[in-house]
Amino acid sequence: MDTFKPRFLPPYYGAAYYPEDWPDATADRDIELMLGAGVNVARMAEFAWARMEPREGDYQFGWLERAVEKLADAGIASVLGTPSATPPVWLVEKHPEVLFVQADGHRIGHGGRRHTCPNNPVYRDYSVRVAEKMADAFGQDDRVVAWQIDNEVFPHYDFSGRGGMFTRACCCPVCMDGFHAWLEERFGTVDALNQAWCLDLWSQRYDRFDQVPAPDNHIWHHPSLLASWDRFNSESYVAFVAAQARAIRARALQPIGTDMMPFFELDHYAMNRELDVVQFNHYYMNDLLRQVPLYFDYLRPAKDRPWWNTETSPGCPGNHQIAPYCAPGFCRANSWLPFALGAEANLFWLWRSHWNGQELMMGGVVTTEGRPSHHYDEMREVSAGLKNSADFLRGTRPVQTGLAIHAGFDPAVLFRSQPVMSGFNYVDSLQHKVYQPLIRKQYRPDVIAPGVDLDPYRLLVSCFLPDLSAGGLRDRLQAWIEAGGIWVAGPFTDIRDGEGGKFLHAPFGILEEWAGVHCKYQIPGSPKGLRYTWADGAESEGQVWHCGFEPAPGTEILATFREHWLDGLAAVVERPMGKGAVVLLGTMPDPEAWVRLVDRLAERAGVRPAADASVNVMAAPRTGGAGSGLVAVEMENKEGWCAVPGPGVDLVSGNRVEGRVELLPYGVLVYKADA
Amino acid sequence: MDTFKPRFLPPYYGAAYYPEDWPDATADRDIELMLGAGVNVARMAEFAWARMEPREGDYQFGWLERAVEKLADAGIASVLGTPSATPPVWLVEKHPEVLFVQADGHRIGHGGRRHTCPNNPVYRDYSVRVAEKMADAFGQDDRVVAWQIDNEVFPHYDFSGRGGMFTRACCCPVCMDGFHAWLEERFGTVDALNQAWCLDLWSQRYDRFDQVPAPDNHIWHHPSLLASWDRFNSESYVAFVAAQARAIRARALQPIGTDMMPFFELDHYAMNRELDVVQFNHYYMNDLLRQVPLYFDYLRPAKDRPWWNTETSPGCPGNHQIAPYCAPGFCRANSWLPFALGAEANLFWLWRSHWNGQELMMGGVVTTEGRPSHHYDEMREVSAGLKNSADFLRGTRPVQTGLAIHAGFDPAVLFRSQPVMSGFNYVDSLQHKVYQPLIRKQYRPDVIAPGVDLDPYRLLVSCFLPDLSAGGLRDRLQAWIEAGGIWVAGPFTDIRDGEGGKFLHAPFGILEEWAGVHCKYQIPGSPKGLRYTWADGAESEGQVWHCGFEPAPGTEILATFREHWLDGLAAVVERPMGKGAVVLLGTMPDPEAWVRLVDRLAERAGVRPAADASVNVMAAPRTGGAGSGLVAVEMENKEGWCAVPGPGVDLVSGNRVEGRVELLPYGVLVYKADA
Amino acid sequence: MDTFKPRFLPPYYGAAYYPEDWPDATADRDIELMLGAGVNVARMAEFAWARMEPREGDYQFGWLERAVEKLADAGIASVLGTPSATPPVWLVEKHPEVLFVQADGHRIGHGGRRHTCPNNPVYRDYSVRVAEKMADAFGQDDRVVAWQIDNEVFPHYDFSGRGGMFTRACCCPVCMDGFHAWLEERFGTVDALNQAWCLDLWSQRYDRFDQVPAPDNHIWHHPSLLASWDRFNSESYVAFVAAQARAIRARALQPIGTDMMPFFELDHYAMNRELDVVQFNHYYMNDLLRQVPLYFDYLRPAKDRPWWNTETSPGCPGNHQIAPYCAPGFCRANSWLPFALGAEANLFWLWRSHWNGQELMMGGVVTTEGRPSHHYDEMREVSAGLKNSADFLRGTRPVQTGLAIHAGFDPAVLFRSQPVMSGFNYVDSLQHKVYQPLIRKQYRPDVIAPGVDLDPYRLLVSCFLPDLSAGGLRDRLQAWIEAGGIWVAGPFTDIRDGEGGKFLHAPFGILEEWAGVHCKYQIPGSPKGLRYTWADGAESEGQVWHCGFEPAPGTEILATFREHWLDGLAAVVERPMGKGAVVLLGTMPDPEAWVRLVDRLAERAGVRPAADASVNVMAAPRTGGAGSGLVAVEMENKEGWCAVPGPGVDLVSGNRVEGRVELLPYGVLVYKADA
Repeated sequence: MDTFKPRFLPPYYGAAYYPEDWPDATADRDIELMLGAGVNVARMAEFAWARMEPREGDYQFGWLERAVEKLADAGIASVLGTPSATPPVWLVEKHPEVLFVQADGHRIGHGGRRHTCPNNPVYRDYSVRVAEKMADAFGQDDRVVAWQIDNEVFPHYDFSGRGGMFTRACCCPVCMDGFHAWLEERFGTVDALNQAWCLDLWSQRYDRFDQVPAPDNHIWHHPSLLASWDRFNSESYVAFVAAQARAIRARALQPIGTDMMPFFELDHYAMNRELDVVQFNHYYMNDLLRQVPLYFDYLRPAKDRPWWNTETSPGCPGNHQIAPYCAPGFCRANSWLPFALGAEANLFWLWRSHWNGQELMMGGVVTTEGRPSHHYDEMREVSAGLKNSADFLRGTRPVQTGLAIHAGFDPAVLFRSQPVMSGFNYVDSLQHKVYQPLIRKQYRPDVIAPGVDLDPYRLLVSCFLPDLSAGGLRDRLQAWIEAGGIWVAGPFTDIRDGEGGKFLHAPFGILEEWAGVHCKYQIPGSPKGLRYTWADGAESEGQVWHCGFEPAPGTEILATFREHWLDGLAAVVERPMGKGAVVLLGTMPDPEAWVRLVDRLAERAGVRPAADASVNVMAAPRTGGAGSGLVAVEMENKEGWCAVPGPGVDLVSGNRVEGRVELLPYGVLVYKADA
Repeated sequence: MDTFKPRFLPPYYGAAYYPEDWPDATADRDIELMLGAGVNVARMAEFAWARMEPREGDYQFGWLERAVEKLADAGIASVLGTPSATPPVWLVEKHPEVLFVQADGHRIGHGGRRHTCPNNPVYRDYSVRVAEKMADAFGQDDRVVAWQIDNEVFPHYDFSGRGGMFTRACCCPVCMDGFHAWLEERFGTVDALNQAWCLDLWSQRYDRFDQVPAPDNHIWHHPSLLASWDRFNSESYVAFVAAQARAIRARALQPIGTDMMPFFELDHYAMNRELDVVQFNHYYMNDLLRQVPLYFDYLRPAKDRPWWNTETSPGCPGNHQIAPYCAPGFCRANSWLPFALGAEANLFWLWRSHWNGQELMMGGVVTTEGRPSHHYDEMREVSAGLKNSADFLRGTRPVQTGLAIHAGFDPAVLFRSQPVMSGFNYVDSLQHKVYQPLIRKQYRPDVIAPGVDLDPYRLLVSCFLPDLSAGGLRDRLQAWIEAGGIWVAGPFTDIRDGEGGKFLHAPFGILEEWAGVHCKYQIPGSPKGLRYTWADGAESEGQVWHCGFEPAPGTEILATFREHWLDGLAAVVERPMGKGAVVLLGTMPDPEAWVRLVDRLAERAGVRPAADASVNVMAAPRTGGAGSGLVAVEMENKEGWCAVPGPGVDLVSGNRVEGRVELLPYGVLVYKADA
Repeated sequence: MDTFKPRFLPPYYGAAYYPEDWPDATADRDIELMLGAGVNVARMAEFAWARMEPREGDYQFGWLERAVEKLADAGIASVLGTPSATPPVWLVEKHPEVLFVQADGHRIGHGGRRHTCPNNPVYRDYSVRVAEKMADAFGQDDRVVAWQIDNEVFPHYDFSGRGGMFTRACCCPVCMDGFHAWLEERFGTVDALNQAWCLDLWSQRYDRFDQVPAPDNHIWHHPSLLASWDRFNSESYVAFVAAQARAIRARALQPIGTDMMPFFELDHYAMNRELDVVQFNHYYMNDLLRQVPLYFDYLRPAKDRPWWNTETSPGCPGNHQIAPYCAPGFCRANSWLPFALGAEANLFWLWRSHWNGQELMMGGVVTTEGRPSHHYDEMREVSAGLKNSADFLRGTRPVQTGLAIHAGFDPAVLFRSQPVMSGFNYVDSLQHKVYQPLIRKQYRPDVIAPGVDLDPYRLLVSCFLPDLSAGGLRDRLQAWIEAGGIWVAGPFTDIRDGEGGKFLHAPFGILEEWAGVHCKYQIPGSPKGLRYTWADGAESEGQVWHCGFEPAPGTEILATFREHWLDGLAAVVERPMGKGAVVLLGTMPDPEAWVRLVDRLAERAGVRPAADASVNVMAAPRTGGAGSGLVAVEMENKEGWCAVPGPGVDLVSGNRVEGRVELLPYGVLVYKADA
């Protein structure tokens, strides 16, 4: 990879392109329109297996080579996807054993996508072989700037709309054998599994690993089984992608990634361990736009390299039915947000709307008939701004502010298998109770998986992180706190072991010890939060959960409950630990109290809001060889503002700016400070 | 048929009658009560296969002959149904292969109804044979005035209430072979199918027809596959009914029909091609009553012959649970509405409530214990009115006003397989946005399938008619417009080819050319309609969809968008074409603007409201050898009125009427003008 | 049993205890905490089959003996459950034929509970054998005070949350054979079944019993089939439990029961015919608490012996997610309510929260880590009160007031298979329209199954009791009325025969004759109740249903309809019959009118409200060898009061009380009158 010199440089701005579905004659019009929109990248081939291998072993890349060439001639880079999401019919007919099998034994047939087993060795072989052939053909081609493996891999999504959480992964014999081997690897003996999961309960204990079932939605299953199943399936897809990645890497120079969806159903960090570039798809439209930064802040720390937003919609998503339209300006804000948060690419899905098929009402940059969509002019405006900002964006990276928030697949798995409290939703709680209040105040956190190194951070928030055991997190936390870190923990943090079981000695693994408390009572957060007061007299109501603490000497009480059984018990406490401190939340503060608490802790930790801006604006400072500045994006279709720290230029407009800069609804500012 | 002289003449007013489920002794009381209610028709036998053929080949019609005789002796006509909706248990036990098979392979067993395959040749043979035997017994009998084939045939309804759109038709091997043959017949080669459906997309292309699956609700299927499956299934049931019809016709004199439900899941027009009399069942009670005329206006043009309302409820529908009651007077309005709109028969389901079974709480004209229901007196009043009006009804037919609205199975299939826009519902949109505003203004349209001859009409509305290709509609439209017709088209009209694919050259097949426009942008109708103004300055908000047009010279702009990307583009245009004109709707007007537009076009086309009446009244003029007049029905349980065009008589009351006639809630007027 | 002298006497107050799931070391802490809470009973072993028989035939009771001993040493009684709800994996692996089979053929596998067939002889043998071994070990042990068979037996509950009423019972070959034999036993010949169910309808008739299917939710089934299936399944579980009961009884001295759920899916009375002590589980928390007395009043008359509340929650129920908390005081009211209504035991589920498994978020008296929950102090307060009241509670029984209300499995089965009216819910109607208005007025009814002897009662309410045929009820009613009883009947009473069919001669079997009326019309209770007036002029609106009656001479009209078809017809009538009277409700009165009517009838019958108390208080008088008094419980978390009939003592507080005694929210009074 080091030796790879792409012909076309980021920032990349473009779209997915499907020449295989169109008469050849449309290509010239496409190129013309791409140039008009300022597009400089096109993603191709990720569903085109039947075109690339119409008969077994008969590989046909001529059509794709012509497309790459035509694009390159127009100054447009290519990204190539491997087609393993959609096998040709001859493959599944010859090898029906590669098809995805539901828990009820139903084998998913041809006609859709993602209908194959991730573990089947026959399917892996075919998938690797076509990827190798693609790499042989394009691996040294400087017109191709990256690879994408497969498309949106994750355990099978239920397209029927009838739900079915437990049937979402393949249950074929290969997967079942793999699951049993995975359990044996994890536990060694079946008695160890019986003990770890408390399987004397309900006489559930197994005599052999091969008796452990796949979850079946007719059975009320053990949460540890559900969690293990989720983990095994995530690992299956990681391995499926890695096999192709290794095959391509052996033949190709370009960076490799896989485009992932914003569901916590797959371990995004594990998936990228063997990959080069984090790729991500999102369809958060209209009012949901301001929820997207959570995912971007989670992806950025996964690799020390700019990431890619591989899919989003210019403002007209859909499938066989189009969704409500997005307002003017949306395409602009949605185009810039990834770049602001560390991406080097943003691609729309799709370039030209399909003329038939399952997604024919998904709106493209260009309509089926080859006319600019109503987003085309905004896209042209964005591409012009990107060109003006290109040196600055390439030569700078977002500033890391010392603040991190824990999130990820592990807690998602646990809360999915055991929601702990009726009505509790992990992702929503993280988004709305932890993350949004902070970014409205212009904090710029990294959102990190539990395995990430803590050294770069000075203030760490770990709400809803039940298990501290994985990857030695507890020890790393201890060392980090003792070295000066301030850790905010709870609710629902350190309440489970690695198998989802509760601790026998205390409601927490280590938190009572670290925070110097005895937890007297635990009360759910509904039907109504319990009242408590802060040390300064401010009154509030608990959210999510209530732990009432009896503090040990040396533990400072930050807030005290005032209701029912908890009256007089501590609600929030702090205790020094080495040079740092542990702040334990017995209840989740409401947004206002939450921000006030973080403000005080951040000040002590030397963490500051990244900018002075209105709550509807996301402002991300950046710095590097090309100077320093910030990118600000208005996310709520309202007027907003951002104060810049000194005189400089808005690279988009070319205007000089200073002090408070007004942003139009969905407006963007790319501020570069004067040197 | 021409030689058939029924002993009893229409208008027929009666009910379904099930002597097979009752002790013989109840028959005399039934007859007595029928005479009291003025009933002159009874429908029998459509579920009584086990009584008619208790053992294979042992046909028993004595009980049915006695019933026909007893009824005829009392002056009551019989209608006979063939029993193929409910095979005896010996048949399905001997031939389990005749049972309906779901997509998951589950075979539907004995215990309900409609549980057999429409294509299975063994089942067709048995069904035809029992129909033949019935025809042998009753085909020359002038006491029997019509035949009904089977009962409410349509692809399997999911009685479990758990949904399952894709499993609603039989997937047995016979059906799958039939489907593949149907595809081969339609496309010739599998490459033609691959091309027509754009199957390089997602590597979906097939190598052979027999690889095409039946839709399975675990797969995200291609809309063209779903649509083809729907069409094939409709044709299967049409053929199933036709086989019996042919067998009966060879032996019987009476007209033949099949009672159909108001779902667009079956092609009602195709179904009636080989039948004689359109038969229809409806259960639109209470507030839903005013939605029924849409279906009646759709049935009337299907055959040049009065149609039959074969089932409705006197006001107490249900199954194993009875529905809320209907108000006094409902039975009257619901009795007269079919006659007003061209029917010659209206039968209740059912005469006497069952004493056990799946529908024992369906309310009859007479209760289980043989007492008049609370609707009995209204029914007697209606039958008296019908007798007074009989000559007039028999000797006149509803006046055709020159206005037609397109509707039918084809567009329903397309919107079911691809709803085009999130939240769009074809039937609701047709009912509430197109039809109801017009009938509240007393327009009296025919609602016609796309295949119907256009010559009789002068003004034609084709909203939500995606495909103009079937049956040469486009050419017929062109000729009709050039000869002077005014055609109102859109939204969602002419947007798809016959396979549900989009056009490559333009968003419409021909509409840009005919209307003289270039469609610049297309925007969904939600989250909020875009503002536009009419030429006269009236302001409005778009509904359903927005196409912004750039008009060519010679195209008149009727309305102009005023918001967002569409600001300044045309919203509604008109262009002359030969002696006629095309009016293209870029958006659906709200009801008020819609009626204003139609008023202007109708005046030019010489189409007038059929009557002057209050919005809650449906007034249908009629004329013929027996004179002229109108039938008016109040549909909303409120006071209303209808102006009669000159002096005449209300045949129901015998009163002289002139000018504005007041109608009581659910009141009826049968006005005959003085000669 | 007569010779059994338990070492520990009621009232029992305790919890379910699972030593098999915990390290031995926790037991000492458990005992210490039990003593602190005043616990005197622990229920054990009902899921511990794998611990008691880890390998086939290898019975291990040492751990259980140690637990019983440790408890007894601390003064705590043991209750033992047989483990047949959760077979070990070796059993189901060796005999997969014992697993529960759904209607679709899906066999429910290991991993949950209740996943076995109730009729399978192999499973019955294994279940009986382990029960025998337990009885051999503990049957003569005076530290064990009772047996519980299995746990919450009832036809399979669908844990998937996807519904599926018709798949809720096992459909394996053994069950199907059993069902066919059951039908043959019931009907003798298949023709008798065909006739009884009206199976000429829809050609449903069978030629042999073995053709009758199990209900399948893809079929619209006959209600009589559904009802028979429900009855057969209830009997299957009764027989399943009885087999174990007989095995234990042959070896053990202690009383035997089975803990049942408050669903009417099982015949609770039939279940207890071969058992000694009625055991019941309920989880009616917070606002639902005041619905519980209905069930308690239904259980008490089932046996002439105090019953047991075997499970409830101290206030924190859940499974893998905890439910909203209950307010302070709830545990007190919920602890006392069963004792007030005739129980001699009340046990919480569970003692110590599990540390893993499907129910790890179910809150215990003690937390997983061995700390008192926030309900612990209330529990200690209750146990102290119970000790103070023990002699009084043991030496008295609730007073039977002469008032009974009919309810039970039979009507529930019928309304489940045919709800009769859209929106009608049997249990809700019974609870809110019949029962609650009366207990708010301090009536203290027995709620009795139709088979219960009527002699003890003077006023009997039978609303929603469709079938009077079972167990000779009609004849017993007649004799009871003629001897002086006052019977209030309807709506929906006497409207069906034993198979759920309607009568042919009248809408009622006998009620027209007994009440001296002719029912002219029947109208559903929705969309709006019809107006009627009472003889004293009070106006009201009908509820549920409306029968309009024409009275015969000698029938007194209590209320008269004033609307629509029913105007002038009688709504409520009364007619003397022997020394008693029949009151027939043509419509359900609203709560106010209902109580006024019952007041008048109760006065004539010599039935009085049991106490003078506020509507939120349940006051239950009791009397016996230990004196007389009452137990009053506030059920709505509001202040309330109860008047005591004379001077006495509150045994809980030890205070003297007289006149009106105030109760705190969720407060309790155990009043003993001065001798």
